[in-house]
Amino acid sequence: MTTISGHSYIAGEWVTPGGAAFYSLDPRDEAPGQGFRSCEKMEVDRALTAAERAYTHMRTLDGRTIAAFLKAVADEIEALGDTLIEVCDRETALGPVRLAGERGRTTGQLRAFADIAAQGEWVQASIDTAMPDRQPLPKSDLRRMLRPVGPVAVFGASNFPLAFSVAGGDTASALAAGNPVIVKGHPSHPATSELVAQAFDRAIVSTGFPAGCFSLLQSAGHEAGVELARHPGLQAIGFTGSLAGGRALMDIAAARPRPIPVFAEMGSVNPVFLGPETLARTGEAIATGLSGSVCMGTGQFCTSPGLAIMVADEVFEGHMRRAMDAAPRGYLLNPGIRDALIQGLDRLTNTDGVEWLNETDFDANGMSPPNAVFRVSGDAFLAERRLAEEVFGPVTLLVACRDQEQMLHIATSLDGNLTGAIHADDDPGLSDRLLPALEDRVGRIIFNGYPTGVEVCPSQQHGGPFPAASDAASTSVGTDAILRFARFIAYQDAPQELLPVALRDANPLGIHRRLNGRLTRKPV
Amino acid sequence: MTTISGHSYIAGEWVTPGGAAFYSLDPRDEAPGQGFRSCEKMEVDRALTAAERAYTHMRTLDGRTIAAFLKAVADEIEALGDTLIEVCDRETALGPVRLAGERGRTTGQLRAFADIAAQGEWVQASIDTAMPDRQPLPKSDLRRMLRPVGPVAVFGASNFPLAFSVAGGDTASALAAGNPVIVKGHPSHPATSELVAQAFDRAIVSTGFPAGCFSLLQSAGHEAGVELARHPGLQAIGFTGSLAGGRALMDIAAARPRPIPVFAEMGSVNPVFLGPETLARTGEAIATGLSGSVCMGTGQFCTSPGLAIMVADEVFEGHMRRAMDAAPRGYLLNPGIRDALIQGLDRLTNTDGVEWLNETDFDANGMSPPNAVFRVSGDAFLAERRLAEEVFGPVTLLVACRDQEQMLHIATSLDGNLTGAIHADDDPGLSDRLLPALEDRVGRIIFNGYPTGVEVCPSQQHGGPFPAASDAASTSVGTDAILRFARFIAYQDAPQELLPVALRDANPLGIHRRLNGRLTRKPV
Repeated sequence: MTTISGHSYIAGEWVTPGGAAFYSLDPRDEAPGQGFRSCEKMEVDRALTAAERAYTHMRTLDGRTIAAFLKAVADEIEALGDTLIEVCDRETALGPVRLAGERGRTTGQLRAFADIAAQGEWVQASIDTAMPDRQPLPKSDLRRMLRPVGPVAVFGASNFPLAFSVAGGDTASALAAGNPVIVKGHPSHPATSELVAQAFDRAIVSTGFPAGCFSLLQSAGHEAGVELARHPGLQAIGFTGSLAGGRALMDIAAARPRPIPVFAEMGSVNPVFLGPETLARTGEAIATGLSGSVCMGTGQFCTSPGLAIMVADEVFEGHMRRAMDAAPRGYLLNPGIRDALIQGLDRLTNTDGVEWLNETDFDANGMSPPNAVFRVSGDAFLAERRLAEEVFGPVTLLVACRDQEQMLHIATSLDGNLTGAIHADDDPGLSDRLLPALEDRVGRIIFNGYPTGVEVCPSQQHGGPFPAASDAASTSVGTDAILRFARFIAYQDAPQELLPVALRDANPLGIHRRLNGRLTRKPV
Repeated sequence: MTTISGHSYIAGEWVTPGGAAFYSLDPRDEAPGQGFRSCEKMEVDRALTAAERAYTHMRTLDGRTIAAFLKAVADEIEALGDTLIEVCDRETALGPVRLAGERGRTTGQLRAFADIAAQGEWVQASIDTAMPDRQPLPKSDLRRMLRPVGPVAVFGASNFPLAFSVAGGDTASALAAGNPVIVKGHPSHPATSELVAQAFDRAIVSTGFPAGCFSLLQSAGHEAGVELARHPGLQAIGFTGSLAGGRALMDIAAARPRPIPVFAEMGSVNPVFLGPETLARTGEAIATGLSGSVCMGTGQFCTSPGLAIMVADEVFEGHMRRAMDAAPRGYLLNPGIRDALIQGLDRLTNTDGVEWLNETDFDANGMSPPNAVFRVSGDAFLAERRLAEEVFGPVTLLVACRDQEQMLHIATSLDGNLTGAIHADDDPGLSDRLLPALEDRVGRIIFNGYPTGVEVCPSQQHGGPFPAASDAASTSVGTDAILRFARFIAYQDAPQELLPVALRDANPLGIHRRLNGRLTRKPV
């Protein structure tokens, strides 16, 4: 039987951190469960030292060896069986159906990155052959590919206890690129984190993978995270969470003597633009789809649509009120999220011109919030910038504009977002005019759909201009998430035997390479 | 006849900035030439406003239209003829041969990025087709490509008045990606900058390109640069110059309410590792090659090799002393570089254990420095971290180690560098042991060569871990420099006619695309 020890896991050993105690809480009744202790500077140093040492071995491993390890982790997570779902549900109240789905996504991501590592094409190999007789100067042989960067810190998210946490996308992609990973576990689900670390432990033992390549530091306070971000041995940070947390890490990383990159995905309001004719024809169906997206997972998704921009339409407001009331209610993940939601609802209700269309009592001691839909005029929205800020939970704000011009004006007033959606098939010309505004502001533009449900595939872009993400150019979901944890190195006139396999003449991996500027799988 | 007006160029107009006067100086005698005025906040605002407005048009242009503009700029630079070389030589003392070569590199880069823009494959298009019948949930159609980011600021370098300046690699790559560019001209060669801006002006007129897509702000102080970096409309910064300047821009950009990326290339000491047996056999040839690389362009290259790490070898020291004395002397670019060089030489001569092997008087009022080779023991080098800092000029430090182990120890003690070189063909096993240390610390690893001479080609990597560059993952030279000024956007279930051409089913550009994870040029 699986037991939870309350320890942290550092480079193959279970250790008792020196910091303050904290507890796993059940969101349904806030009853404390298993106790844990927070890691401090000492544990951070130990994990980093082990990671740096292990990296000297890990960097020599080929993609297939890394792939075998990632697949073993996926197998061991599945071998945890119902225990993982039960423990995780007790800590998150997300329910067994959602959690089983999220587990499938997590093991799917591990195996997808395993395949990417084994196949090897992700390194973007490029070869320019020498021209010794070129005039006026000979040209050297130059070959270039992506290489791992070294120890990476991953900050787990509260709202995806499996898929964006200990063995989530950041961890899988950083390991696949060949980097050791140190996870700062989220204090909202420490028992779940420990179970997943146990799966890592078994995979390390069964595959003989270097133990220092993975550590889990449990922590409820800020110390471990801050020490991690400041540690001279750290090379990059992956983070999923709040704007405040992500910006704090960005500021720490930028102020280091040697700054390092932070890939923080911090959420957004994900505006949905609804054309008036389209609403007139299909408003009821849109209300059903939109409210389902808003309320999914009790609204605790970074892609939850918190803003719907439309031309004033009382019929649609009625549809939305009914659809939101009909949507199932769930639980919030932890008291911190509840308190922030209460503040957010207070802010909305106390803003001039904002109307709560389906106002309901929210028992501040309870953890199950109402599904809330608000309404504001376009003028009032434009007058109060804070109305464009995220309220994390099952909440959306309908912005009732005077006309399509005002919808466009609002589109160009928004900050960075992960996504923007357009429903305007019956409104000729509206999509064309919205498109440039969204291209400047979001990472993914959705037509006739809703932002929740982020497909894991090569063409996914999960990110966006600040404050949605710290690095608008990268994605935290999908194949290319691996590119965040690698950098290019060029080898000039290197002997074949010193070159990484991906760059050797014979192309032993059989990958596409850019050979003198042209993509090909041919040998040199 | 070409005249220099002393004005700045903002969005198609020549303007007189409101700031303090400064002068173009001849480094040979410090005689002042044409006067200029520094731009201030007002000019920065004007250039950014024009750039943002022009971007709404520029983003709609296809790659071939942008290519035609870049080629017109190259043509107009060539049409400046000998005037450009003469004016530039008067401001830089780099000499007509070098400057003609640099002009060729500059127009070559413009045409290379024109070809990249026209060909269109750089956008890394990826298409995942829909699976409407997938269980348990249908899969949407997702398509993703790189898109421009908006207005980019380029800070020209003093040491490449053409190739890393007004029409240099940063400008060419940012424009090729579809971004407006605002150049902050380097005050060390304002007349050269103005001539190149005249070429832009003629190309804008002849091609009808949106004028706001290019501005040149002349400035001798910090105000224009700081205002530019802080401007809310700016989306990215390209910089080539000193660590102090680059770090200042990084800090400003990171502290903005909405941080933006800075691609700063800040130089380095470019260590060269020389195996003892290899030196014994080919030391004289290496001394010739190394001193040529150190003294090229009066040592004013970011890739100048400022450190040579070897096992103590008095014979090689003699070769180096003679080779450095035999190498031609040139002029420094400006009095600021001279003053910094005098400080750097003072620091070296006043450090315990450092010996100036070919000590020569350096007339502090003169601008033509001696070619200087210093020597220090491995122990003394390891005891004084500042010996690993760059001294900009024709200076190199020989680090005479006890043995190969100490060479390896020094390799792992270094900070980030643009390049690292290894000459060890006669020292079995040494290259293998140096390689991982260099992979962690440099962007380009050179075998049996010298770091100066950065080939412009697809496999080039010009960058490296901080402090060599701000963003180790990117390159500022070569094809992929364009990737710095673009970000991915995904389109979900978009109608064909709203998709960018590169993502449409028929593949009208005929480019390689990732179609359901596989590279192909086939249509969907």
